[in-house]
Amino acid sequence: MYSERYGSMKELDSRMCSQLDFIMEIDKLKNIVRQSYISDGSRKETDTDHSWSLAMMCILLSEYANEKIDVLKTVKMVLIHDIVEIDAGDTYAYDTNGNDTKRERELKAAERIFNILPKEQGEELRGLWDEFEERKTAEAKFANTLDKIQPVMLNDITGGRAWREHNVREEQIMGRNSTTHEGSEKLWEFCKKLIEENIIMGNIEKSKK
Amino acid sequence: MYSERYGSMKELDSRMCSQLDFIMEIDKLKNIVRQSYISDGSRKETDTDHSWSLAMMCILLSEYANEKIDVLKTVKMVLIHDIVEIDAGDTYAYDTNGNDTKRERELKAAERIFNILPKEQGEELRGLWDEFEERKTAEAKFANTLDKIQPVMLNDITGGRAWREHNVREEQIMGRNSTTHEGSEKLWEFCKKLIEENIIMGNIEKSKK
Repeated sequence: MYSERYGSMKELDSRMCSQLDFIMEIDKLKNIVRQSYISDGSRKETDTDHSWSLAMMCILLSEYANEKIDVLKTVKMVLIHDIVEIDAGDTYAYDTNGNDTKRERELKAAERIFNILPKEQGEELRGLWDEFEERKTAEAKFANTLDKIQPVMLNDITGGRAWREHNVREEQIMGRNSTTHEGSEKLWEFCKKLIEENIIMGNIEKSKK
Repeated sequence: MYSERYGSMKELDSRMCSQLDFIMEIDKLKNIVRQSYISDGSRKETDTDHSWSLAMMCILLSEYANEKIDVLKTVKMVLIHDIVEIDAGDTYAYDTNGNDTKRERELKAAERIFNILPKEQGEELRGLWDEFEERKTAEAKFANTLDKIQPVMLNDITGGRAWREHNVREEQIMGRNSTTHEGSEKLWEFCKKLIEENIIMGNIEKSKK
């Protein structure tokens, strides 16, 4: 966009044009709607809402990470972790068919979107996205923990609305959260409490033992 | 919320409860609607959309800051700079009456909202908000520059829609941007180009000389 408009005429630095093109491209993330409702229940949240919440949680809750984390790196990671959904769309956590093809769709998206940036910046963000997906480093584990806890908080505060709409069962939510403790035992303790109360309230279907 | 639910029974650490209460309180920022339309023109953007965009711009464009900036500090600043609007509401840049009472409304909001956090975290974020408002440090100048440029980019890409809806005139927009160059001469050069083209296209009313 800016690249053709200004870069080809050398009116503006072509590096800056690519960066600003990327900024406008990722504006599309504002249109990707998730299944969780925002706290007052008035609408579902978007990927940008969600990413902003995770960044705020990262800034305020890093003291609860199991291992010491680089906060700036983790903030960058949560801000960009859903950018691939611009092409791949949001796949609901409990959508089995969608999750079969998710990885492939997201890899293709990462390839296209991060390549809009100047090489080293594209590689940095792509690296952060890969790291988030692999969930091996302290930062990636903590970022993934926040990504799991935040929708639980929203579900809890809205009376389990998205859970009830999708008939989510205890074993599904516990399966999905099997690694949530890896980023923060303390935040997982809190999250587990919310889940347990919502099972008792019937917002999450109890497992048949 | 969590403080009463868990903190008073000592089921969870009361510090953590205050932090999580703050996270849920600021979720309300997702409901504050701005005048700029998102890039595809489908709806107006919210404060969380806008704050996420500024954080991404900060991460990717810090090389253009006039003075060297602390990126993490600036990212925190842009992520929280609009939080006071939860109580004070969004005041449109060119709303004269609204802007008369804006400062007072926002100070009262800052007092209430940042006090939900544990003392030292509340003070840190309040300090960052004050710093942003005062626009004296390198970080505050750069953050303010991004805050001005981002809506210009959205206005430009949507054919000047919000400008036309509010009959914005050249002298208004140039007045509002009189300090935009202080954070980044290079980004201001880009922004000025967009403004000039939109004056030519009639999306911004030309000043009578």
